[in-house]
Amino acid sequence: MPPVDVSPPSGTRDLFPADVLLRRRTFATVQDAFERHGFEPLDTPAFERLEVLTGKYGEEGEQLIFRILRRGEHAASGEADLALRYDLTVPLARVVARYGSQLPQPFKRYQIASVWRADRPGRGRFREFTQCDIDIAGGDTLVADATVILAVVDALAALGLDGVTVHLNDRDALHGLVAAYGIPEALGASALTALDKLAKVGADGVAAELRERGVAAGAVDALHADLSAADPTAALVARIGTDARGRTGLERIAALQALLPDTGAARVVHDPVLARGLGYYTGPVFECTHPALDASIAAGGRYDGLIGMFGDEPVPAVGGSLGLERILLILAEQQGQEAGGQGPGPDVLATVLDPDDAADVLAVAAGLRAAGVSVDVYAGGGRMKKQLRHADRRGARFALVRGADERATGSVTLKELATGEQTTLPEDAAARFLRDRLGRADGAGADADGTTSETA
Amino acid sequence: MPPVDVSPPSGTRDLFPADVLLRRRTFATVQDAFERHGFEPLDTPAFERLEVLTGKYGEEGEQLIFRILRRGEHAASGEADLALRYDLTVPLARVVARYGSQLPQPFKRYQIASVWRADRPGRGRFREFTQCDIDIAGGDTLVADATVILAVVDALAALGLDGVTVHLNDRDALHGLVAAYGIPEALGASALTALDKLAKVGADGVAAELRERGVAAGAVDALHADLSAADPTAALVARIGTDARGRTGLERIAALQALLPDTGAARVVHDPVLARGLGYYTGPVFECTHPALDASIAAGGRYDGLIGMFGDEPVPAVGGSLGLERILLILAEQQGQEAGGQGPGPDVLATVLDPDDAADVLAVAAGLRAAGVSVDVYAGGGRMKKQLRHADRRGARFALVRGADERATGSVTLKELATGEQTTLPEDAAARFLRDRLGRADGAGADADGTTSETA
Repeated sequence: MPPVDVSPPSGTRDLFPADVLLRRRTFATVQDAFERHGFEPLDTPAFERLEVLTGKYGEEGEQLIFRILRRGEHAASGEADLALRYDLTVPLARVVARYGSQLPQPFKRYQIASVWRADRPGRGRFREFTQCDIDIAGGDTLVADATVILAVVDALAALGLDGVTVHLNDRDALHGLVAAYGIPEALGASALTALDKLAKVGADGVAAELRERGVAAGAVDALHADLSAADPTAALVARIGTDARGRTGLERIAALQALLPDTGAARVVHDPVLARGLGYYTGPVFECTHPALDASIAAGGRYDGLIGMFGDEPVPAVGGSLGLERILLILAEQQGQEAGGQGPGPDVLATVLDPDDAADVLAVAAGLRAAGVSVDVYAGGGRMKKQLRHADRRGARFALVRGADERATGSVTLKELATGEQTTLPEDAAARFLRDRLGRADGAGADADGTTSETA
Repeated sequence: MPPVDVSPPSGTRDLFPADVLLRRRTFATVQDAFERHGFEPLDTPAFERLEVLTGKYGEEGEQLIFRILRRGEHAASGEADLALRYDLTVPLARVVARYGSQLPQPFKRYQIASVWRADRPGRGRFREFTQCDIDIAGGDTLVADATVILAVVDALAALGLDGVTVHLNDRDALHGLVAAYGIPEALGASALTALDKLAKVGADGVAAELRERGVAAGAVDALHADLSAADPTAALVARIGTDARGRTGLERIAALQALLPDTGAARVVHDPVLARGLGYYTGPVFECTHPALDASIAAGGRYDGLIGMFGDEPVPAVGGSLGLERILLILAEQQGQEAGGQGPGPDVLATVLDPDDAADVLAVAAGLRAAGVSVDVYAGGGRMKKQLRHADRRGARFALVRGADERATGSVTLKELATGEQTTLPEDAAARFLRDRLGRADGAGADADGTTSETA
């Protein structure tokens, strides 16, 4: 066999215990927060019929879809009939079209799942990554918009990411801005892209880019003056208010702000230059930033046009998405965790020095497990030194020795690996000793279904 | 746009809340059991380089691999360069080859993840399904074999599937059986396939099939006599013991049985006709059956040849696999759960009768959530009757009304949906009342990180 490249495919990762456990904890925290707000979990297949995905992501996105070859007699055709899901929104739209009135109305679902995009891989940019979406399909009141924002903020706070700023804007207010400064509609999207960079490049930078993009000098000067004002938001808002559609947007923003109770977890601000996916969103939009970062960690808005794409009727919808991969990087850094690192390790590594000891060691291990202690029985054979090195490598808290001497006296020897402290004690006292040293409440042991709350 | 087929692709499923939550609980229980035995989680990409998967599953399996088309300028070639993972064993072999000595030795990992096979879909047979594997790579002692079996049995017991029978056999004992009855080696695998059906078709059925498969009359008669004996196992074992390699296998089975402490969760029996994947396993093999079923719910064995396939050196390995999809069907039936059913629903559905009430209702909801009560604020608008119907549909325990009257008197009205009982009480007493009625320990409220143990 010729040598095979055994690294994970470009843009994908092998996830080791520390990664998997961090992800699992993080997902569980987010799920809890979403469920507290009445969102329900949904899962959809990893792949969809090709025609479900095509024509949904623009020309650029279309290139990034992983297509799956037809099988059997059609394999030779080189044609694809399926494709890996590219996001979680199109699958939601398909589910809404498929199950319709069988779903609760409104349908509040969340989905935390892998998506695949054949993007050029880079630092923090993967071809397989986890998306985390909540959406309310069929919710046409501002309560829906507020609920999505509150659930997102709650999830971030539950992850320890408080001090978040929620930047609010509205599609109509953006339209009003373009009109109020006399920018031609054809240049609107381009101008908003430039304006969205205000925080990064400042008023001068925005003005330069607006000129480059062909916006007339008068409009650029007026915008530059307002962006340079003592209170740029107030200056922009005053101007937007001169346009009827702009006023509609401003009123909606104010109404939405009034619905967001101050839970202390986030500050909500109106950001009149926030411009997210103009062709996508139809009403309020939001973006969450965190002081520790110069990028958004969550975003969303109302997109009434999309969820109904597979049906006959439009479906009002509002959604939000957590930037989970970015958040996981922050959390891993906070915990000083290295990529590819090991998990917390078992409570006990039980050594087996002589094959004749094995049955007895396995029985002792079974007893400890029943008391809620995790025990890894060494399966590699070899000398004590090698087995203790393995216990260290695995991050075990204790090594257990149960040789002929211990068996004869009905005892076990426990070595705490961090301190080297060694204790020989009666076999039936080992579980209590370990639970005590491991800081577990005593007396609990295994509960009825054989699991223990401590190892959960 | 022409109408698009919005059902999930053939052989795949949309999973609704009740399914997702059952899966999540089941996976967590299994993970706990595996971790108590010192296994660590690993996750690998959904797809692998095509050459990693090809040549591993035989001609038949090869046809079932989902291949992914090359992208960009190569898209038109119709060639594949990636493929969806077909099992979790080949990815493990790749990981062992890739990270080698950076991994603990032995490397005990589990993986619960989707795999994809382009099989003909059928009842309970899917093209996307979850596999659940534990393996010990680099463990060459019988402690490794015992550990895999103990962890599997523990996981089944933790799921409430006790009363399991573990059927044990060994590759060398099977070889000895074939030799001892004078069956030519070329017919060995075929004869063992027939023998494996003993429980289903009886001694006569096995004899007929052996004859059909070309086994000589003398061997068939001898086997038929032993299979019809009062204790067929004893009769077969006596005969297997006449062959040297057969004796080696029998001794290994006895040694392994001696390592399996009686935890009360399972009965371990030697099953001399159990024949699992002869070309795959190299030592002990096992299969777990449950009285409620006529099929295996877990299986595994030692397969020393495979994990080293991508490296220069052989890697001893032993593994086990839970039939999770089958187990999930049993658990769902036990719980009287319908496929596509809803989840447990929120504790409270908060009604919003007048848009002017919304800010106040959202604030009340936020307060209840902080006390560990899940609250779904109705986002659809409309009359009370419609909102209460939705509360029923969602399986909410209580509906909350907070209109102008309640606001004026600082109270909330709570309606228990099952009984219709309606209670109006001071706003600050609502959380305690709900926690009491929901059967939650009092006084806890939200803990430091904003989650509550009750909703976890």
